[in-house]
Amino acid sequence: MPKQVDHEQRRRQLAEALWRITERDGLEAASVRQVALEAGVSPGLVQHYFSSKDAMLAFAMERIGQDLGARLAARVGGLPEPRDPVQVVRIVLEERLPRTPQDRVKAQAALAWTGRAALRPELRNYLVEGTRVLRDYVAARLAEAQETGRCRRGFDPATAADALIAVSDGLSALLLSGVHDEHSAAAVIELQLRLLAA
Amino acid sequence: MPKQVDHEQRRRQLAEALWRITERDGLEAASVRQVALEAGVSPGLVQHYFSSKDAMLAFAMERIGQDLGARLAARVGGLPEPRDPVQVVRIVLEERLPRTPQDRVKAQAALAWTGRAALRPELRNYLVEGTRVLRDYVAARLAEAQETGRCRRGFDPATAADALIAVSDGLSALLLSGVHDEHSAAAVIELQLRLLAA
Repeated sequence: MPKQVDHEQRRRQLAEALWRITERDGLEAASVRQVALEAGVSPGLVQHYFSSKDAMLAFAMERIGQDLGARLAARVGGLPEPRDPVQVVRIVLEERLPRTPQDRVKAQAALAWTGRAALRPELRNYLVEGTRVLRDYVAARLAEAQETGRCRRGFDPATAADALIAVSDGLSALLLSGVHDEHSAAAVIELQLRLLAA
Repeated sequence: MPKQVDHEQRRRQLAEALWRITERDGLEAASVRQVALEAGVSPGLVQHYFSSKDAMLAFAMERIGQDLGARLAARVGGLPEPRDPVQVVRIVLEERLPRTPQDRVKAQAALAWTGRAALRPELRNYLVEGTRVLRDYVAARLAEAQETGRCRRGFDPATAADALIAVSDGLSALLLSGVHDEHSAAAVIELQLRLLAA
């Protein structure tokens, strides 16, 4: 189905144009018209794929989530069996932080998206659902770590997962705005994991 | 100096118009012209007080910081002596989370501001400096708690302060976008403090 592939490639191309504009000028500049200009296509073509800026953003965020999922699966899959659940959680936290310039573009878009989701209830679902899936995954790893004696037993895995996600969200924003660098952010993650360790 | 007071009141009035627009329509909508409309003054008057949208934002953020400082001072001042440093840290974390509708407006503006600061180096200083002051304050309380045996000794107070600030930044954004509510956010803060406790 070559037609199918073309559509997917085109959507990705438009999402990448959206990310570049967001990094350079902020989400506010990323109109359908600007995305068309940046991608070198007509505004009508952008509108053919995305009915609105929010639809474009939703797609871009979904791609970020899928890319993160693929990177996690690859790194977690490479761990020796039986997998150390604390190491899995460390990978999740590391992968959520922007490291490369390309990551920064996406983290910038995600930050702007979070701000926008606070204003538009119809955008919230993706964020709420995506966070819930991630939270459940991290909580299950922490519960496993408690069962195998890798973590202290005196905490609720779901609340600890919420804390780790909030920390990495906070660190991402603080990395983007230059309050943290890669080194200081890594120290925070190490401390968080150490506080949960047995 | 009544003239001085008028200027300050006028600036606050404009900052409040900015916050209302940001909450309703996002930071992107908060142009000098829109702030003038919202505040019921001329665009020229807004420009008399603020040379640009960024100058207006910087002032609005500074006011948020000052208001937070005043609320903290009042609550911390009300603690029985000698003050429990862990209780002081709890107050800092609680006060940083949006609770009232008015808090939400400001937190929304702060989130948008953080996104903007990532793009504009000249805006970063306020964020970097403000976070540094807060971090040093929290780290000093944690060091005090370690000395008095209220906290475990096995962590670096500065890194733990970074973690707490990142957690509360992350929770603020997740509260605004409906991923967390007041109850679940409070549970995360309690867990963080409990992990540091002796």
